[in-house]
Amino acid sequence: MIGAQSPLLHGLFGDAEVEAALSDAALLAALLEAEAALAAAQAELGLVPTAAAEAIAALDRPETEDLVAATARDGVVVPGFVAALRARLPAAHAAYLHLGATSQDILDTAVCLQHRAVLDILEGRLRSVMESLARLAEAHRGTVMAARTRHQQATPTSFGLVAAEWLMPLVRLAGKLPALRDEVLRVSLGGGSGTQAALGPQAPAIAARMAARLGLAEAPLPWHAQRDGMLELGGWLVQLSGALGKLAGDVIQLAQTEVGELRLAGAGGSSTMPHKQNPTAAEAVVTLARANAHRLGALAAAQLHAQQRDGTAWQLEWQVLPEIAQASGGVLLRTRDLLAALQPQPARMRANLESSGGLWAAEAIAFALAAHMPRAEAKALVAAACRETVATGTPLIAVLRRHTDVPLDWDRLGDPLAQVGNAEPLIDAALAAHAAL
Amino acid sequence: MIGAQSPLLHGLFGDAEVEAALSDAALLAALLEAEAALAAAQAELGLVPTAAAEAIAALDRPETEDLVAATARDGVVVPGFVAALRARLPAAHAAYLHLGATSQDILDTAVCLQHRAVLDILEGRLRSVMESLARLAEAHRGTVMAARTRHQQATPTSFGLVAAEWLMPLVRLAGKLPALRDEVLRVSLGGGSGTQAALGPQAPAIAARMAARLGLAEAPLPWHAQRDGMLELGGWLVQLSGALGKLAGDVIQLAQTEVGELRLAGAGGSSTMPHKQNPTAAEAVVTLARANAHRLGALAAAQLHAQQRDGTAWQLEWQVLPEIAQASGGVLLRTRDLLAALQPQPARMRANLESSGGLWAAEAIAFALAAHMPRAEAKALVAAACRETVATGTPLIAVLRRHTDVPLDWDRLGDPLAQVGNAEPLIDAALAAHAAL
Amino acid sequence: MIGAQSPLLHGLFGDAEVEAALSDAALLAALLEAEAALAAAQAELGLVPTAAAEAIAALDRPETEDLVAATARDGVVVPGFVAALRARLPAAHAAYLHLGATSQDILDTAVCLQHRAVLDILEGRLRSVMESLARLAEAHRGTVMAARTRHQQATPTSFGLVAAEWLMPLVRLAGKLPALRDEVLRVSLGGGSGTQAALGPQAPAIAARMAARLGLAEAPLPWHAQRDGMLELGGWLVQLSGALGKLAGDVIQLAQTEVGELRLAGAGGSSTMPHKQNPTAAEAVVTLARANAHRLGALAAAQLHAQQRDGTAWQLEWQVLPEIAQASGGVLLRTRDLLAALQPQPARMRANLESSGGLWAAEAIAFALAAHMPRAEAKALVAAACRETVATGTPLIAVLRRHTDVPLDWDRLGDPLAQVGNAEPLIDAALAAHAAL
Amino acid sequence: MIGAQSPLLHGLFGDAEVEAALSDAALLAALLEAEAALAAAQAELGLVPTAAAEAIAALDRPETEDLVAATARDGVVVPGFVAALRARLPAAHAAYLHLGATSQDILDTAVCLQHRAVLDILEGRLRSVMESLARLAEAHRGTVMAARTRHQQATPTSFGLVAAEWLMPLVRLAGKLPALRDEVLRVSLGGGSGTQAALGPQAPAIAARMAARLGLAEAPLPWHAQRDGMLELGGWLVQLSGALGKLAGDVIQLAQTEVGELRLAGAGGSSTMPHKQNPTAAEAVVTLARANAHRLGALAAAQLHAQQRDGTAWQLEWQVLPEIAQASGGVLLRTRDLLAALQPQPARMRANLESSGGLWAAEAIAFALAAHMPRAEAKALVAAACRETVATGTPLIAVLRRHTDVPLDWDRLGDPLAQVGNAEPLIDAALAAHAAL
Repeated sequence: MIGAQSPLLHGLFGDAEVEAALSDAALLAALLEAEAALAAAQAELGLVPTAAAEAIAALDRPETEDLVAATARDGVVVPGFVAALRARLPAAHAAYLHLGATSQDILDTAVCLQHRAVLDILEGRLRSVMESLARLAEAHRGTVMAARTRHQQATPTSFGLVAAEWLMPLVRLAGKLPALRDEVLRVSLGGGSGTQAALGPQAPAIAARMAARLGLAEAPLPWHAQRDGMLELGGWLVQLSGALGKLAGDVIQLAQTEVGELRLAGAGGSSTMPHKQNPTAAEAVVTLARANAHRLGALAAAQLHAQQRDGTAWQLEWQVLPEIAQASGGVLLRTRDLLAALQPQPARMRANLESSGGLWAAEAIAFALAAHMPRAEAKALVAAACRETVATGTPLIAVLRRHTDVPLDWDRLGDPLAQVGNAEPLIDAALAAHAAL
Repeated sequence: MIGAQSPLLHGLFGDAEVEAALSDAALLAALLEAEAALAAAQAELGLVPTAAAEAIAALDRPETEDLVAATARDGVVVPGFVAALRARLPAAHAAYLHLGATSQDILDTAVCLQHRAVLDILEGRLRSVMESLARLAEAHRGTVMAARTRHQQATPTSFGLVAAEWLMPLVRLAGKLPALRDEVLRVSLGGGSGTQAALGPQAPAIAARMAARLGLAEAPLPWHAQRDGMLELGGWLVQLSGALGKLAGDVIQLAQTEVGELRLAGAGGSSTMPHKQNPTAAEAVVTLARANAHRLGALAAAQLHAQQRDGTAWQLEWQVLPEIAQASGGVLLRTRDLLAALQPQPARMRANLESSGGLWAAEAIAFALAAHMPRAEAKALVAAACRETVATGTPLIAVLRRHTDVPLDWDRLGDPLAQVGNAEPLIDAALAAHAAL
Repeated sequence: MIGAQSPLLHGLFGDAEVEAALSDAALLAALLEAEAALAAAQAELGLVPTAAAEAIAALDRPETEDLVAATARDGVVVPGFVAALRARLPAAHAAYLHLGATSQDILDTAVCLQHRAVLDILEGRLRSVMESLARLAEAHRGTVMAARTRHQQATPTSFGLVAAEWLMPLVRLAGKLPALRDEVLRVSLGGGSGTQAALGPQAPAIAARMAARLGLAEAPLPWHAQRDGMLELGGWLVQLSGALGKLAGDVIQLAQTEVGELRLAGAGGSSTMPHKQNPTAAEAVVTLARANAHRLGALAAAQLHAQQRDGTAWQLEWQVLPEIAQASGGVLLRTRDLLAALQPQPARMRANLESSGGLWAAEAIAFALAAHMPRAEAKALVAAACRETVATGTPLIAVLRRHTDVPLDWDRLGDPLAQVGNAEPLIDAALAAHAAL
Repeated sequence: MIGAQSPLLHGLFGDAEVEAALSDAALLAALLEAEAALAAAQAELGLVPTAAAEAIAALDRPETEDLVAATARDGVVVPGFVAALRARLPAAHAAYLHLGATSQDILDTAVCLQHRAVLDILEGRLRSVMESLARLAEAHRGTVMAARTRHQQATPTSFGLVAAEWLMPLVRLAGKLPALRDEVLRVSLGGGSGTQAALGPQAPAIAARMAARLGLAEAPLPWHAQRDGMLELGGWLVQLSGALGKLAGDVIQLAQTEVGELRLAGAGGSSTMPHKQNPTAAEAVVTLARANAHRLGALAAAQLHAQQRDGTAWQLEWQVLPEIAQASGGVLLRTRDLLAALQPQPARMRANLESSGGLWAAEAIAFALAAHMPRAEAKALVAAACRETVATGTPLIAVLRRHTDVPLDWDRLGDPLAQVGNAEPLIDAALAAHAAL
C-alpha cells in the first residue's frame, strides 16, 4: 500500500486500531451483523422464520479475497457477499437472507457500525489528550512566555493558558459526540429505490428493531441519497484533526532553534546533522491535518448524490471518509506521543521575553502613563521609546525612565508575570469546561 | 469584480442581499457597533465615562476608501478604522475608544454580527424552499415515476417521495440553526494576546454585557486562535448548498431531452438552437454547490492557526467564509426560482416506466412468484424473462405469462402505483418532520 | 488498508502494477539504487574507493518492517535505512555509504526513480487506450447521434467524432511525456542544507554521473525546497484522470436507461433488481478522477515548503502524489476495461434523434430558409414551428411544410448524417494527431 | 463585493490591472473582438459581405447592465450579447453576425484573449521579481546564515543562495510561457455541437484566419468539452503563486522576533502593540497562494465536462480560473512590495548561527575528524560533544578541543563562510539560468 497507508510510514501516519475498525474484515463482519439484525427483526415481526434468522446469525463471514471479483463486477460488495452467504445456507433459509433490502441498506448500516467503533476509539484518546492538556494548563499557570501574534512577539501570556486554549476546541468536540452519534450512526433501510416496496408496510418496525439490536439510531426516511450525516461526521473528524494540527504547529514553532521554548524528548535525528532535534511527531500531526482539510472538500462534493443512488458519489465517500477517520486517529496517537515528550523550558520562555528589550511591556506602560498625561501623548512617548529600543538595544523601561519622571511602578510593569492579565481565571474556565464534560 | 462575483453573472451566481450583509459597508457598520457595545459595556461597569460611550455610539462609520491604504499597511482594517474614529472624537473621549481591545476582538465580533444577518436571510429562504418542497411532496403523492439508481431505471417511486427526500436534509439543517447560532455567533474579547491584560479583571463582565447588547453568545475563553466555530458555520453552509446541489442535479437529469420528466418554464435559450431548453438555474445551483465543496477544504485548512494570531490563516477565512455564504445564498435564490419554474410531467414519468418493457416490476414479480416455487427458481425465471424483454422488446409480464401459469395478480404487479411501497407514509414522515420545526 | 486502497475494492480502484512501483519494497530498492549510484559516481571521481562502491552496490535492501520504528522516530526513512546498510558493510567501507548526502537527496532521487517506472506503466496503457479510441473514431465515422449540450439534445454529431474528442487530450498528454520526464525526474544532490558542503566542489560532477547511471535528468541547483516539479507531475497525472473521467461520465450518461446509446458487456448487477445494467467501470473512473482533482489541491498546497526543508510539506507530498499516481493508473485500467465492453447502439442513437420530432434540424433549416427570406423572418418561422412540435409532437419538418412552400431539400435537411458538418475531417485531424505521436 | 475581492482589502489581495483584464468590460470587448474576427475571416473567404464585416467591426460593445437579465436567463452571456449587437446593425448585415458560431466559440475565444492580456501583465512582473531576486543573490553571496531544515538550524548557507533558490522555479515558469501561450490561448470554433455544421467546410480556414487576426493559436479540433488547456493554464498560475508563497513564508519565518534575520520597512502595525512589525505583505502572499492551491482542485474537477457542453463544469471554470489569475497577480504585486521592503540583517544572521554554540559545524567537524580516526568513532565523538554543548552552552569547538587533540583547522571549521560549500557556484548557476531566459 502507498501514500498515507504505506506500512513503512505507519509509525508516522498510521493508526492500527482505527485501520482495524475500518478494515475489510471489519466491514464484512459489520455487513453480516446488519444482515443478521435484519433477519432477526423480521423474525420478531413474523415475516421470517425464526430458524432462518438463527441460521443467518450463525453464519461465518466470507473471506475478502472471495469477494473481490464480484465487487469489481457489481461496483459494490453486497451482491457477492449475499450470494456467498446464501450458498452456505440451507435452501429453506436462503430466501430469507437480505429479504427486501438493497445493497445500500446493508452497506450504509455496516459503515455506521464501523464508524461507531471508530468514534469509540477516538473518544478514548481524545479524553486522554484532554487530560494531558488540562494537567499542562494547571502545571504552567505561572510559566510566563511571549504570546506570538502574526509571528511576532506580543505581550506575555502563560504556557498554562496556551495549553488551555489548545484544550477548548477539544472540549467542544467531545461535548458534541452524543448528538453526533445520534444524528449520524443510523440504520439504513429503504429497499431498491428507497420506497421499502419489497420490505412491506412493516418496514419502519423492522428498521426500529434493527436499530435497537445494532445500537444505531433510526432515520425517519431512508437516506440512500441524503449524505448530510456523512459530511457531518467528516466535519467533526476534520475539526478534530484541525484543532490538534494547530497545537502541533505551535509546538513546531516553539521548538525552533532560535525559540527553544519547547523541547521534545526523543526528537527525530538527521542523517547528517547529529545536533538536529526534528519535531517528528508534530510534523506528522500537521501533515495529517492538512491532508484531512483537503479531503473534507472531497467529502462535501460527494453530497451531490445523483437521483436515488449515485455510484460515483457513494464511492467517493468510501474512499474519503475512512481516510479522514484514519488520519484523525493518527493525529490523536501522534499528539499523545507529542504531549508525552513535551518538555517546556520556562527559563527560555522568560529569556525570550527579555531578549527583545522588554518591548512587550509597551502596551501596559502606555496604559499606565495615560493616568498621568493625555493618552495620545502617552502612546507617542512609548512609541518613540520602542523605536529607540529597537535601534539601540537599550531595554524599553530604561529608555522611558530617561525620558519621563512620571512615578510608575516600573518593577511591576517590567515583570511579565504581573502582565498576563486574566490568564489564571481563563485557565480556570477551561478546566471547568473540561471537568463538566 | 471577476469570477463568481462578476456583475454580468450576478443573475446566475449573485445574491444581492447576502452581499450587502457581507459588504465592506456592513462590516464597517458592524465594527462600529462592536466598538460602541464595548464602550457601553465598560461604561456600565464604571470603566469608561458614560459621555465617552455615548459619543462613540453617536459616531458615523468611516468610508471604505479612507481605510484601504491603512488596511494594506496593517494587514487588518481595525487600526486604521480606530484611528479614523478617534480623529472624530473629542480628545477627552478618544482614549476610551477600543479600550483594552485588540483588532481581532472587534473584527471577529463584527464578522459574527454579519453572519448573524446572513443566517437570518438564509433561514427565511430556507423556510420558503422547504414550503415549496412540502407542497410538491403533498401534490405528487400519486405521481409515479422511475427511481434511478446508478443512472439506471430501478423500481417505481413517486415524485412526491422524491420531493420529500429533497426536503429532509433541509429540515435537519433548519433544526440545527438555533444551536449553530449559539455556538458560532460569539463576542470575541481577549486583548492583544488573548489574556485580556489591558481589559482588566472585569473583562468577562464586559464581554457578557457586550454579548447582551449585540445579541451574540458569550465565549468562555477568547477564541482568537480557536477557529472551530468558523468551520462549523462553513460546514452548515456547505451542507446547505450541497443538499440543494443534489436537488438541482436531479432536476438536470430529469429534464434531459430523453427523460423529459421535468420541464422548466422560461428555460434558457441557445444562440443557435431555438429548441433547446437549458436548465440554467439548476446549473447555477450545481456550480455554486461544487465550488462551495472545494472552499470548505480551504476553510478547514484555516483551522491550523499559528500561535496566538495567524495573519495568513485568519485572512484565508476572510476570503473563503464570505464566499461560501454568498454562494449558499445564491443557491437558495436560484433554487427558489427553479422550484417556481418546475413543471413535472406525470404522463412522461409513467411513459418512461413503461418504455423499458416493465422491467422495473421484476423484483416484485420474483417476490410474488416465490410464494409458489422456491425463491431461487423464481429469481432465475424472472432473470431469464428480463433478458428476453431486453432482447426482444416484449413487455416483461407478457413474456412471463408465456412461461408460467402461476396465478398472480398480474394487473397489480404491472401497475407502478401499486408498487411504490411505503412512499405515502414516508412522505407523511417527511411532512411531519417539516411541520415540527 | 482502507478507503481507496481497500483490498476488497481493488478491482474497482486498485492498480497492482502502479502499487508495486510505488510500494515500500520498490522504494527501498530505489533508495539502494540511489546510494549505489552516489558511491559509484564518487568512485569514478576518486572520492570513494572502488571496492567500497562495489560493496555498496552488492548490498541487499533491508526489510520494511526493520525500518518502521526508525522512520517514525526520524520522520523519514533514510537515516534508519542508511544505518541498516552500514551495519552490513565492512567497517572500511561503511564510511563511504551516503557520503556527503542528506536524507532528502536519496529519498527525492528514489521517488523520481519510482515515478519513472509509473510513467512507463501509464504510457503503455495510455497508448493502448488511444489505439482503442482511434479505432472507435474510425469505425463510427458514419454513426450519427445527438450531441448533447447542457444535458439537452443539440444538433447531430457522430459517435466517431465523440471518440475523436475523447482522444485529443490524451494525444496532447502523450506528447508532453518526454518533456515531463526531463523536467521532473531529476537527481537530487544538495547535502544537509542544499549547499553541497559535505559533497565538496565536485558535487555537480557527482550529480551528473549519478544522473547518467540512473537515467534521470540533472538539476542545475538542488531542489529540496523547490517542489514545482512534483506539482507538474501531479498536474499531468490529474489531467490524465480528468480526461478519462470526462469519457467515463459521458458513457454513464449515454448508458442511461432512457438514452441507451451505449451498452456495456458484463455491466454490474444489483442485489435486488436483475434487470439493472450498472456502469461499474465507468463509475470507478469518475470516482477516481474526482478524488484526484481534490488531491491536486493538496499537492499544490505542498509547494509552500518552509525554508530549506519542511517536514510537513514534504510528507504531504509523500501521501498525495502516490495516491494521485495510483488513481490515474486505476483510471487507465478501468477505462481499458470500459472500452473493451463498450457496445455502441447505432439504431438507438438514430432513434433518439428522431424521437424529439427532428428539432435538431432547426438550425440547419433556418439557415436554408434564410436564402429565401430575411434571416430574422426565417428564424421566427422556425422557432414557431419548434414550439408547435414540442406542443403537438408533430415532426418539425412536417410542421414547416404546412407553413411554407419555400422549395428546400427537406430530405437532406431531415437526414442527420447530412447534418454532421465537418465530423469526418475533424476525425481525420484527430487520427492524424494520434498517428504523429 | 466580498471575500478576496472586497474593495477594503484591495491593498492586500487585489490586483487592479489583472482585474481590469478580466473584468466584464474587458470580456465584452473581447467578445466583440472575437465576433469581428469571425466576420472578417468569413469576409476574406467570401462567405460574408465585406460591408457586413466592417459594420460588425465598427460596433460599440453593449453595457454590462443591459446583459445581466439575458445572461441569467440563458446561462451564458453570448445570446443576449449577440441580440444586442444585432439590434444595432442594419437588417442587411445583422444576419452575418455570429454566423455559424455557437456561444461557446465566442466566449472561449474571448476568455483566451483575456488570459493573453493577463499573462502579459504577469510576465512583466515576474521578470521584475526575478531581477530583484537575482540582485539579492548576487549581493548576498557572502552573507552567511543558518539554513533551517524541519524548523531547526542546520548547517550554514548564504542568503544569496536562499535568494537563488527562490529564483529558480520562477525561471522555469518564465521559460514555459511561450509553450503555454501556444497550447492554451486558442481560437474556439465548433458551432452548436462541435461539428462546425453551420460554419461549412471552410470552418478550418475561418478558424485559421481568426487565429491570425486575434493573435491566438489554432486548435486542430474544437475544444468545447476538452478543458485540459484551462487546467494547464491554472496549473501554471498556481505554480507561480506557490513558488512565491514559499518565498513569503520563508520571509515570515526569518522575520520572527526571535530570528530577526529579515526586517521589513514599513511593516504593519498593531492596534494595541506599537512595537509589532507585522509582515503584512508576506502574509497576503501566503494567504493568496494557499487559496489558489485549493482553487486548483476545483479547476481540475471542471475537467469532467459532460458530453458536448456542460453548463456546470464550464461555469465552475468561469468562477475559478479568473480568481486564480487574480490571486497570482496579487501575489506578484505583494511580492514586489515585499522585496522592495526587505532588509536583510547579516549581523543577526551570523549571531544566530553562533548563538547555538556552533552546533552547525558538527557535520563538517565529523568529516574532518574522520581523516584521523574511524568514521564511526568520529561521529560518536561529535555527537557526544553536541549533547554537552546543548546541555551546558559551551561552544561545540571548545568542547571538542577539550576531548581531542587531533590537529584540525578549528578556525576554518568554526567559520561559517568557509562552510557554505558550493553556495557560490550554485548562485552562479541560478544567475546563468536567469540570464539565459
